[in-house]
Amino acid sequence: MEFLLNHSRHHTGWCNRPDLADLDPELIKAVLEEAGKFATGELAALNQSGDREGCHWQDGKVTTPRGWHAAYQQFCEGGWLSLALPERIGGQGLPKLLAMAVNEMWLSANMAFVMFHALSQGGCEILLHAANAAQQARYLPALASGQWSLAMALTEPNAGSDLAPTTTKAFPLGDGLYRIKGQKLFITYGEHDLTENILHLVLARTPDAAPGSRGMSLYIVPKYRIKPDGTLGDENDLRCMSIEHKLGLHGSPTCSISYGDQDNCIGELIGNEGQGLSLMFILMNEARLSTGLQGVATGEMAYQRALSYASERMQGNHWQDNKRRVALIEHPDVARMLLSMRSRVLGLRSLAYLISARIDLANHCTDQNEQHTLLANVALLTPIFKAFATEQGHEMSSTAIQIFGGMGFIEETGVAQLMRDSRVTTIYEGTTGIQAKDLLFRKILSDRGMALRQLLDEVNACADRLLSSTALRFPAQQLMACSEQLQQVIDELLTDENAVQLRCYAGAVPLLDALGYLLTGWQLAELASSLQLAEYETTYQQNIVALAQFYTAHHLVKVPALLQTVATAETGLADYRFNT
Amino acid sequence: MEFLLNHSRHHTGWCNRPDLADLDPELIKAVLEEAGKFATGELAALNQSGDREGCHWQDGKVTTPRGWHAAYQQFCEGGWLSLALPERIGGQGLPKLLAMAVNEMWLSANMAFVMFHALSQGGCEILLHAANAAQQARYLPALASGQWSLAMALTEPNAGSDLAPTTTKAFPLGDGLYRIKGQKLFITYGEHDLTENILHLVLARTPDAAPGSRGMSLYIVPKYRIKPDGTLGDENDLRCMSIEHKLGLHGSPTCSISYGDQDNCIGELIGNEGQGLSLMFILMNEARLSTGLQGVATGEMAYQRALSYASERMQGNHWQDNKRRVALIEHPDVARMLLSMRSRVLGLRSLAYLISARIDLANHCTDQNEQHTLLANVALLTPIFKAFATEQGHEMSSTAIQIFGGMGFIEETGVAQLMRDSRVTTIYEGTTGIQAKDLLFRKILSDRGMALRQLLDEVNACADRLLSSTALRFPAQQLMACSEQLQQVIDELLTDENAVQLRCYAGAVPLLDALGYLLTGWQLAELASSLQLAEYETTYQQNIVALAQFYTAHHLVKVPALLQTVATAETGLADYRFNT
Repeated sequence: MEFLLNHSRHHTGWCNRPDLADLDPELIKAVLEEAGKFATGELAALNQSGDREGCHWQDGKVTTPRGWHAAYQQFCEGGWLSLALPERIGGQGLPKLLAMAVNEMWLSANMAFVMFHALSQGGCEILLHAANAAQQARYLPALASGQWSLAMALTEPNAGSDLAPTTTKAFPLGDGLYRIKGQKLFITYGEHDLTENILHLVLARTPDAAPGSRGMSLYIVPKYRIKPDGTLGDENDLRCMSIEHKLGLHGSPTCSISYGDQDNCIGELIGNEGQGLSLMFILMNEARLSTGLQGVATGEMAYQRALSYASERMQGNHWQDNKRRVALIEHPDVARMLLSMRSRVLGLRSLAYLISARIDLANHCTDQNEQHTLLANVALLTPIFKAFATEQGHEMSSTAIQIFGGMGFIEETGVAQLMRDSRVTTIYEGTTGIQAKDLLFRKILSDRGMALRQLLDEVNACADRLLSSTALRFPAQQLMACSEQLQQVIDELLTDENAVQLRCYAGAVPLLDALGYLLTGWQLAELASSLQLAEYETTYQQNIVALAQFYTAHHLVKVPALLQTVATAETGLADYRFNT
Repeated sequence: MEFLLNHSRHHTGWCNRPDLADLDPELIKAVLEEAGKFATGELAALNQSGDREGCHWQDGKVTTPRGWHAAYQQFCEGGWLSLALPERIGGQGLPKLLAMAVNEMWLSANMAFVMFHALSQGGCEILLHAANAAQQARYLPALASGQWSLAMALTEPNAGSDLAPTTTKAFPLGDGLYRIKGQKLFITYGEHDLTENILHLVLARTPDAAPGSRGMSLYIVPKYRIKPDGTLGDENDLRCMSIEHKLGLHGSPTCSISYGDQDNCIGELIGNEGQGLSLMFILMNEARLSTGLQGVATGEMAYQRALSYASERMQGNHWQDNKRRVALIEHPDVARMLLSMRSRVLGLRSLAYLISARIDLANHCTDQNEQHTLLANVALLTPIFKAFATEQGHEMSSTAIQIFGGMGFIEETGVAQLMRDSRVTTIYEGTTGIQAKDLLFRKILSDRGMALRQLLDEVNACADRLLSSTALRFPAQQLMACSEQLQQVIDELLTDENAVQLRCYAGAVPLLDALGYLLTGWQLAELASSLQLAEYETTYQQNIVALAQFYTAHHLVKVPALLQTVATAETGLADYRFNT
């Protein structure tokens, strides 16, 4: 993490900005070390017991697993909750880049526990952006300190990926207050025992609102009403009807909540009527990065667990000496699986840091053109990172089970939990299919491929630099070939957009995968080429180079095949009849 | 299934053999229909409840989930257990080809329940092959009727994938009897309440046996001793110490068993001393096919469940008409996922039938050369089918969850169970890595690629036939290109065997994957080209052609990339140092 953070600081020009530069390597190291201690000592220690115990629902109240409450207190007291929140609301105002690294530790240690965190960050950003001064004063300090928590109430039985059919109603009472009525599903930490109050951000529509997504507004609905002096009043009229029995994330309560059974659920409008969906997307961008990071965290844990087991477990004989009994790790096929994980995790983490460094840069940027370029790049990378990192993370959790062999299927070893917990990451905050559609239609076709071309220029520049290196010529050549082929495929889609609509819709996911593999390989190449910047020991440098080489042979080679699929994605699809 | 069975009968020449030909299409249809009724009505109905309830262990006794016992009685009474066993021991002597189809139904309906079945089949084959006449008379009729069951006790804490370190001891008592002492793990249905006796096949070594795998022998150790008149006597000295808490297959008890705590566990030698491992491989071949079939069954259920949900669940608008709300299935990306599943399941099922038809042919063959060719083909296909079908099946269970979206993460919908249950299939009966090593070293390199060349001749002949068809030229050309590239990669490995040992070990799994994708595509092409043999409706024919086309664009294109990985598989691997 340290190496990657410093790499990102230099690579993106982050460390040349006066307002960011005071976060120097020493401070970074100190924060990482403290976070590492807390993640390992407190959060990871509760991960398996929380999974086994799960959450309890009784009479509308939810109890989190043993240890959750104390850990939450420590988490808030340690200032971890407010790390990246602005200082004026009680946060510490540290940059996204550092927050990204620290957040990965929480997710690795105990994903179910820390699910409230991204919500809290994203929710605060919505309020900072759209709430009026009184609302900000009322809600933000208590959210930043962790005294209250935040929940997003979006999904309904008939409104999931598509929120347009939302039926929950908001009846205006005047003074910005509304009476809320409806039922919502899949609300993460919608009810729990960690905080004294819970603020629900509820998507609803007024009786006379336009149909579809434009008629939706966002309301803040507190579990306990807030008196004018800021203390808590009566319970609001909302009730947790049940919690879900899920494949994983057992320690994170997923709630169904009924608002306004007694017609007495009061909420406050945030921003203006009709702004609901666009406000929600502020949180959604934060949530996509945080969910992509769950993929990185899953991959890292999968690698660490598998590496440790493979190093200890003796089984079979050495491939060159069948008289010598060896640990699993000495079997080339096991080493292959481990490097396959290690290389992807490293490349994806580097991509995560690139995105967050550029968000920091955009936030501190005074040049509008530069800011626009940075934001277009972040907007292009976000759906790729969200979908690809989660797909890869889940796949790696499965590879870890494979390395554990039969023991991986036994719950006590804990790797099965990694697979169970991570399975939803490719679904929530927008499925892989939805990210791919966003990528191709909104981020590539709609700007005629401009942001993508700029990204590929960066890839090619990196490859160019490496062509002269004997060790890195193979990755460099492949990167160039892939990038050229990608440009051709996109140019073809741009030329003949109408004729290949079905191709676009059916090829969006393979295209996202192709970009994911390409960018991960690019990041590994950048890391390999930047090693002289830091004074790392020779073995570490050699390892990064070896990973870039390995990745090229085992993953980057998939890009041309995926692009070929994109170019013929509609084949057979229109002719198939499902009803037979 | 019906279409595929008839296709296989013609394609392999099966229906021209007088001794197999009496299994005509009418009988096949009747058996499939009866089996389908039982699978749907009885076994599938217990699948989810069995998963939820799991097995219970108390004081060394195991109780299976509610309904298991009655279903077991019906399964045996219906003659399903003994379908493919020889008539002389009370079986029905039906061919493997038909058994394969019927077994898939059991696995689809309730994998945890039917786990005893492959053991029973394989165990009977060991006894038929190696047990003496008295042993056959004592054990086989009760096994064939289902009165007794069979369990394989192989794994020990330090002997898993590699059985050589087995420490369980067998002390000779004379008269073919031995005193067994040791502890075994991961014994499927090692203890349960379905049958009046359980015969444990235990791998152990005599005190003076050679070390390693050659010193192992196989013993039959009954739970209850058998009196000379065949009735049951006292309990033998063995005890189920615990059952595992597993990710899936909760309804199938996985037992740890201690043999001979009181030095009074009596077993009988099967075959000769030192033959243990080779006898075990008789069962292992049966088990590999049956496990590969679990992959097909998982894929089929994943497809059926996802198809049904996607057809009903309304979400989002039509891609060409954003005013029309549609079911999930109308989104091209969802259709893509469904066809991706459907095409692989169909091709893999066809491959399963090809293998079993050829086992039937070899069993009924009088020409030694022909038999040798058939068996070499089966031996080559078996590890590919086992590993590739299970990997794909598990992947498809995950795709089904993806199509269900958030609902897929909720246990009530049942698709999560598919993923949990199937996760062990790529591990037990030899991991994917072990199958790949078997494939490359024992089935390809050791016969200098001969059996593979014959297989590729079949692929090329099929492609040749299809080149003139407009609709199938694309699959045909790709099949030919892949087959040629595969031959080149293998030729290179054969030419320079010593120089590329690390490449072989690290490239074995990608090679297996390449073959898996190639052969699945070949089977789809064969199906598409054989449709005129049966009188199927036009839509069905069109669909098979569409699947062959779709598969070419979305899966067959992966073969060249995988082969490129094989050709460079050692890249970076030797240079990486894990201890840093």
